[in-house]
Amino acid sequence: MKILVTAFDPFGGENINPSYEVLKNLKDNIENAEIIKIQVPTAFYLSVERAIEKIKEVKPDAVLSIGQAGGRYDISVERVAINIDDARIPDNIGQQPIDTPIDPKGAPAYFATIPIKEIVEEIRKENIPASISNTAGTYVCNHLMYGILNYVHKNSLNIKAGFIHIPYLPVQVLNKPNTPSMSLGDMVKAIEIAIKVIAKNN
Amino acid sequence: MKILVTAFDPFGGENINPSYEVLKNLKDNIENAEIIKIQVPTAFYLSVERAIEKIKEVKPDAVLSIGQAGGRYDISVERVAINIDDARIPDNIGQQPIDTPIDPKGAPAYFATIPIKEIVEEIRKENIPASISNTAGTYVCNHLMYGILNYVHKNSLNIKAGFIHIPYLPVQVLNKPNTPSMSLGDMVKAIEIAIKVIAKNN
Amino acid sequence: MKILVTAFDPFGGENINPSYEVLKNLKDNIENAEIIKIQVPTAFYLSVERAIEKIKEVKPDAVLSIGQAGGRYDISVERVAINIDDARIPDNIGQQPIDTPIDPKGAPAYFATIPIKEIVEEIRKENIPASISNTAGTYVCNHLMYGILNYVHKNSLNIKAGFIHIPYLPVQVLNKPNTPSMSLGDMVKAIEIAIKVIAKNN
Amino acid sequence: MKILVTAFDPFGGENINPSYEVLKNLKDNIENAEIIKIQVPTAFYLSVERAIEKIKEVKPDAVLSIGQAGGRYDISVERVAINIDDARIPDNIGQQPIDTPIDPKGAPAYFATIPIKEIVEEIRKENIPASISNTAGTYVCNHLMYGILNYVHKNSLNIKAGFIHIPYLPVQVLNKPNTPSMSLGDMVKAIEIAIKVIAKNN
Repeated sequence: MKILVTAFDPFGGENINPSYEVLKNLKDNIENAEIIKIQVPTAFYLSVERAIEKIKEVKPDAVLSIGQAGGRYDISVERVAINIDDARIPDNIGQQPIDTPIDPKGAPAYFATIPIKEIVEEIRKENIPASISNTAGTYVCNHLMYGILNYVHKNSLNIKAGFIHIPYLPVQVLNKPNTPSMSLGDMVKAIEIAIKVIAKNN
Repeated sequence: MKILVTAFDPFGGENINPSYEVLKNLKDNIENAEIIKIQVPTAFYLSVERAIEKIKEVKPDAVLSIGQAGGRYDISVERVAINIDDARIPDNIGQQPIDTPIDPKGAPAYFATIPIKEIVEEIRKENIPASISNTAGTYVCNHLMYGILNYVHKNSLNIKAGFIHIPYLPVQVLNKPNTPSMSLGDMVKAIEIAIKVIAKNN
Repeated sequence: MKILVTAFDPFGGENINPSYEVLKNLKDNIENAEIIKIQVPTAFYLSVERAIEKIKEVKPDAVLSIGQAGGRYDISVERVAINIDDARIPDNIGQQPIDTPIDPKGAPAYFATIPIKEIVEEIRKENIPASISNTAGTYVCNHLMYGILNYVHKNSLNIKAGFIHIPYLPVQVLNKPNTPSMSLGDMVKAIEIAIKVIAKNN
Repeated sequence: MKILVTAFDPFGGENINPSYEVLKNLKDNIENAEIIKIQVPTAFYLSVERAIEKIKEVKPDAVLSIGQAGGRYDISVERVAINIDDARIPDNIGQQPIDTPIDPKGAPAYFATIPIKEIVEEIRKENIPASISNTAGTYVCNHLMYGILNYVHKNSLNIKAGFIHIPYLPVQVLNKPNTPSMSLGDMVKAIEIAIKVIAKNN
């Protein structure tokens, strides 16, 4: 089977995006799954277009997207994506949609179709803090999660999809007092566990 | 030269103490310094007694104490120890002093004699979050820091001494939502950097 | 016009619920709106039933629900309710649904139909911290918000509905270190501002 | 009896200083104590000079200093002032001492001589969050607390002295997400309770 994993480029003044640092360090094969890796731009719509192109090309069985959630303390597996863009800062190509539906004809929300509770449980078994999150925000992360689930739904594809937010890396919080971070090693391990769970359930 | 490094046993309902996990993983020789390791009990006075016994035995050039500061976000190098015990919970042998001077004839406070600013700077150069802390609390950590500095001062010994607080390990925060942690690898690295700085300055 | 305001009874070991303390202190008439107040139980389904009974009885033009969000720093106006119950603790009548749709035939989510951005803006103009929240959680608060919006939608009623989460009161955090709170006066003022905005837009 | 209460002018980019807002709102007589109010500049040494001038002028029985501690959650009654200036930002007249003793001949630290535990207890009885703090930092607040206690000590005066840090006001955190604040009413009430305790113990 094939699992497509997406990560983002840096945004919001950061020099790195932990999701891409994790992506680069993922094994190419995890259990019985071939891992296809793609970095997408932190840009509304464009991120989804790039992901969909890749989905068409490689026909994965599942898509796992990873993104930075600066300020969060643990690996947070997103439960739901909502049909709204509301950007506090411009994306990497200067777009800043405010209170705009992602797809005016789309469902108000899509729930992740990967086994979120089992992913959290298995990550925690390896002593890495993890939890379910009930919001992926209203920026590009939520947009990408919504966009992929909406595409899969509208085309009745047999592809599981979901999103995992990860904290800052330690290097990113050197000048951000009282801000939590997580080591790259633990983040890579957590995402590989998530992929194992997705592969096993497919 | 010799550097004595002290760590504590678990307290406050925890199964592990990150300071001891770090201690076990420290190299035995760092730069030109021989590292002598000792675990002391999380107990007022007894912790200092054990440290002093060891100081008498090995005659170190410096003493670095490490302790857990649950809830802190980074490696925090303590600036000062104050002459007071004020325990929110009993120590590991049931003592709970309230507003009691550690040494009624001691100075009101002692400043660390290790180069705290340089230690913070060097740890941060390795991309590990670190800062100066202006309070080691009023529990056993402050007591030990005060006790060692007081002993060194009263006996006019040529021994540098200081204290570094470290965050929880990830495993400790699995059931503590929104609580920061740091990987063992980064904590060991940070303490070894601190030791290098102490050795270089001696 | 009439605005129905709902609040909850205490839950989760608390002796009071700030939403009810606020409710009791609201004026009976705000601008041109008559305020009808109801406390509903912190219980899945039952809370919605009680609210719907009252809606049928008083035929309000809008329904504003208030609930406690312990740990939040400001007045948070909820953007969206999602079709899921997932309870970390039992509700006040012992129910603890896990990953259960609120209405298996309902929409995956409903967006608030009150003017959330304008409410936030007007509250902030009065120097009270407020923001949009993108998750009302998966406990009784989200359930009530979803239930009312679902009822309004299914019956094509001309009723605006929304939910505002408020922080703990100071008295609730006396024994919760490093937990934010807000004064009753500011919370009452904020909710009255929200009601004014709803009344003005109706 | 007379109690001198000091507060600071705004610093660090803030337009107001909650300590001064509180000062302006204090009653002129609390129990049997006449309250003398003075605003001192947020400036090393100059703040102490101004306070000492006033002490000489009014000969108070006690001095209570109030200062802003942005980011703290509750009324925090300081236990100790340490003999060091270490400024992260310049003070209001451009001075930024780094690792400099306040008084090279002074004690390493002075403990507050007001009844800090009783003050905390009485404030909490009125349902306002309060706690002991073990660090007043190394900026002007600690400097003023140290400076006054040092002056009292060196001149063997019969004057009790101490320092209370207060959180931001709500208006100050409008653009600081996830930052705690406290209402002016609760802060004034807390300081008046502290003054009552000081008056009663004198």
